[in-house]
Amino acid sequence: MHAKSIRVGMAGCGTVGCGVGDLLIRDHDALAARTGLDIRLVRVAIRDVCKSRAPHVPDAIITGDLATLNRADVDLVVELIGGTTVARQVVLSAIAAGKDVVTANKALLALHGPEIYAAARAAGVGVLFEGSVCGGLPVIGGVLRGLIANRIDAFEGILNGTCNYVLTEMLVAGKSFADALADAQRLGYAEADPALDINGTDTAHKLAVLATLAFGVHADFATIPVEGITRIGLVDLLAGHELGFACKLLAVGRMTEDGPALYVRPTFLTREHPFVGVDGRGNAVSFYGHSVGHVMFKGMGAGGGPTASAVVSDVVEIALGNGRRTFTQLPMFDTAAATRQAAMRPTAPARFYVRCAARGGAAAVSGIADGLRGAGVAVQEARPFTHPAVAAEGTYVILLTAPTMESTMRAAIDGMQKGGAATEAPVYLPVTDPFVSSNP
Amino acid sequence: MHAKSIRVGMAGCGTVGCGVGDLLIRDHDALAARTGLDIRLVRVAIRDVCKSRAPHVPDAIITGDLATLNRADVDLVVELIGGTTVARQVVLSAIAAGKDVVTANKALLALHGPEIYAAARAAGVGVLFEGSVCGGLPVIGGVLRGLIANRIDAFEGILNGTCNYVLTEMLVAGKSFADALADAQRLGYAEADPALDINGTDTAHKLAVLATLAFGVHADFATIPVEGITRIGLVDLLAGHELGFACKLLAVGRMTEDGPALYVRPTFLTREHPFVGVDGRGNAVSFYGHSVGHVMFKGMGAGGGPTASAVVSDVVEIALGNGRRTFTQLPMFDTAAATRQAAMRPTAPARFYVRCAARGGAAAVSGIADGLRGAGVAVQEARPFTHPAVAAEGTYVILLTAPTMESTMRAAIDGMQKGGAATEAPVYLPVTDPFVSSNP
Repeated sequence: MHAKSIRVGMAGCGTVGCGVGDLLIRDHDALAARTGLDIRLVRVAIRDVCKSRAPHVPDAIITGDLATLNRADVDLVVELIGGTTVARQVVLSAIAAGKDVVTANKALLALHGPEIYAAARAAGVGVLFEGSVCGGLPVIGGVLRGLIANRIDAFEGILNGTCNYVLTEMLVAGKSFADALADAQRLGYAEADPALDINGTDTAHKLAVLATLAFGVHADFATIPVEGITRIGLVDLLAGHELGFACKLLAVGRMTEDGPALYVRPTFLTREHPFVGVDGRGNAVSFYGHSVGHVMFKGMGAGGGPTASAVVSDVVEIALGNGRRTFTQLPMFDTAAATRQAAMRPTAPARFYVRCAARGGAAAVSGIADGLRGAGVAVQEARPFTHPAVAAEGTYVILLTAPTMESTMRAAIDGMQKGGAATEAPVYLPVTDPFVSSNP
Repeated sequence: MHAKSIRVGMAGCGTVGCGVGDLLIRDHDALAARTGLDIRLVRVAIRDVCKSRAPHVPDAIITGDLATLNRADVDLVVELIGGTTVARQVVLSAIAAGKDVVTANKALLALHGPEIYAAARAAGVGVLFEGSVCGGLPVIGGVLRGLIANRIDAFEGILNGTCNYVLTEMLVAGKSFADALADAQRLGYAEADPALDINGTDTAHKLAVLATLAFGVHADFATIPVEGITRIGLVDLLAGHELGFACKLLAVGRMTEDGPALYVRPTFLTREHPFVGVDGRGNAVSFYGHSVGHVMFKGMGAGGGPTASAVVSDVVEIALGNGRRTFTQLPMFDTAAATRQAAMRPTAPARFYVRCAARGGAAAVSGIADGLRGAGVAVQEARPFTHPAVAAEGTYVILLTAPTMESTMRAAIDGMQKGGAATEAPVYLPVTDPFVSSNP
């Protein structure tokens, strides 16, 4: 019955690894019936063999020796240890041993993608990574295969469930940032050290991976402008809500006349935006292609089961013989040919929301607005903002601008601080309407 | 530069064919840069060579002879003529000639899928059909490859843009069914003869295609319960809106203890349903997998550009060497092994909305409610309904039931008509909450 057999070695057995163990061992026969393939998990290498692991993974295949993954009895290595040091060695040594590789490690790909892609192409093996962005949502295959007939004009995503949960809970439950984050940790959505989540780095890793697929570029990760959600206060979510805006941490890729613009920043969405309603742990990605128009993927994204679903879909693609062919044939993984492009902020003007805690309270409104106007920013609305939930924080002034260039806005904000009108660095966010695709 | 060359012959050159012509001829070099493939449209067979055709398709490759698609200078046949008679012959003869086939013809696959799949597997060629469901949304590849590690517990979709446009316009603009449909035709969303759209047949074709991928079954199309939107009145949309419900024509596939249940029917969605906000021409599909949980695809779906995007993505998959392998290896296309399952309505209870134009107007409310109760239906709410926009139609009675079995509901509705309480056959629709996945 099994047309084809493939032997999988796995590095790491945490949340996602346990999920992969469930799918490959507990569900082995069901997967064989669905795919016609006999996919066998033959080795699991973990750094500490005493750690708890998947209930379905037998002791006999557990090892503490990562190097055994490269033996002849393994066809494919799944890398799930995370980080960029040991993981990089595991992946590169598997490639050197002629193994295909499946990984869900977005940090590794964002920082060392070109090195890994070049090594894999030289060795004639495939590197697949559906699980690296939005867990189980098939966005990698979606853009790489489903939308390959398109010039992608833009994409944007809510790529980090922890940040989205925190922003949702603050507004819905009136929690402080710290309390919402603590809840995310308690519920297992956030990492024990959630710094990479909330400072936007995890989102930027995924943005870099998507940019390779959508635009064929390998971004210099260090140059991607990244702003996390740490400066967003409950006051901003409440004021935005009053204005009809929802705050999301967006990863954005736009093709511009000057090349691809990539950035991560908290953004207010207008009511018409397709991401309105993507709340809690939800993830979503939109692509805008010149032929297809708007395509959106939405779901729960990360987590053990969803990410394992994506990892095993890659294993199946390799086992069918397709994964290696796709990887070795498509030019975006030919890092010699592909562009390495510095990421940058977009050059199109946007409306901005500005909030500051101002000396003199409500009386300071016109002074602050005049200051912005003096810096060349057209202010559409300026008013004091109070709300019972943030009454103890003092009086805030919020402003909404006409469409303004980022550089003008940045200079104006810097001026506000120097001029002393604001008691602390003002928070400012772009307000984003739905992207207008070239194809209606 | 071009690693591989593939010669495409196309049958039909209507809206989608013109889009494919744009992508393969106008965008030839851009597609080659993106894929590393030299994909050439070498022949276009149309029934009437005088008809207007894609501006980018040169006269020299146009022919009126469909049989020339099977010559040795064509590697792959794209079938875009629609219908199930000539299209079936084109596809089967291409397969017999050893060509891979790409089609967007959901009617053909719903009615003749098993015959075509069996012929293709016997010939060792691939049949790909990403464009058959939701145009450019990569749902076929999404479920077939991206979610293959999952047992799919359920899926549901808004699969017909014409119906969705009509239902949206009736409510938003207060149009009658006839006026909204006429607008859809004028705007080019509906066919000149939109009967297949509004009677639910087109949606059911797509449902049958998705059932093969999600459940590995080939439904006997004639047995799928299909109800279109022709009986939905503005009064229902207005009353539903008041109750907090949005009316959508849903295609539903649920795996039950008795096998897969498939059906098409107008359905009221509660406010929490992920399809709320999928309006106008929009399409959407949700899958619920045992490992991935909920995954949703959303976008504009049909149309020339979007569907051409999907068709060309299949051509690329064939050219990369993957399309044929996927098709010939995955067991769901092995029609000898796959189940052929009679479709059926679901067996789980649902709340129902009932509307009737009743003799005696408001005074008839308690009589009608008592009639339903007498038939074993728990009525939660029963009241007269009037609205200025439908005032001329007389008084309606609307009712909302507790969760009730379909069979009980059907018998009760039949009883209402026989009893003479209703002046015409009552309209009744299930009310659907979000599907609760086995994976949270």
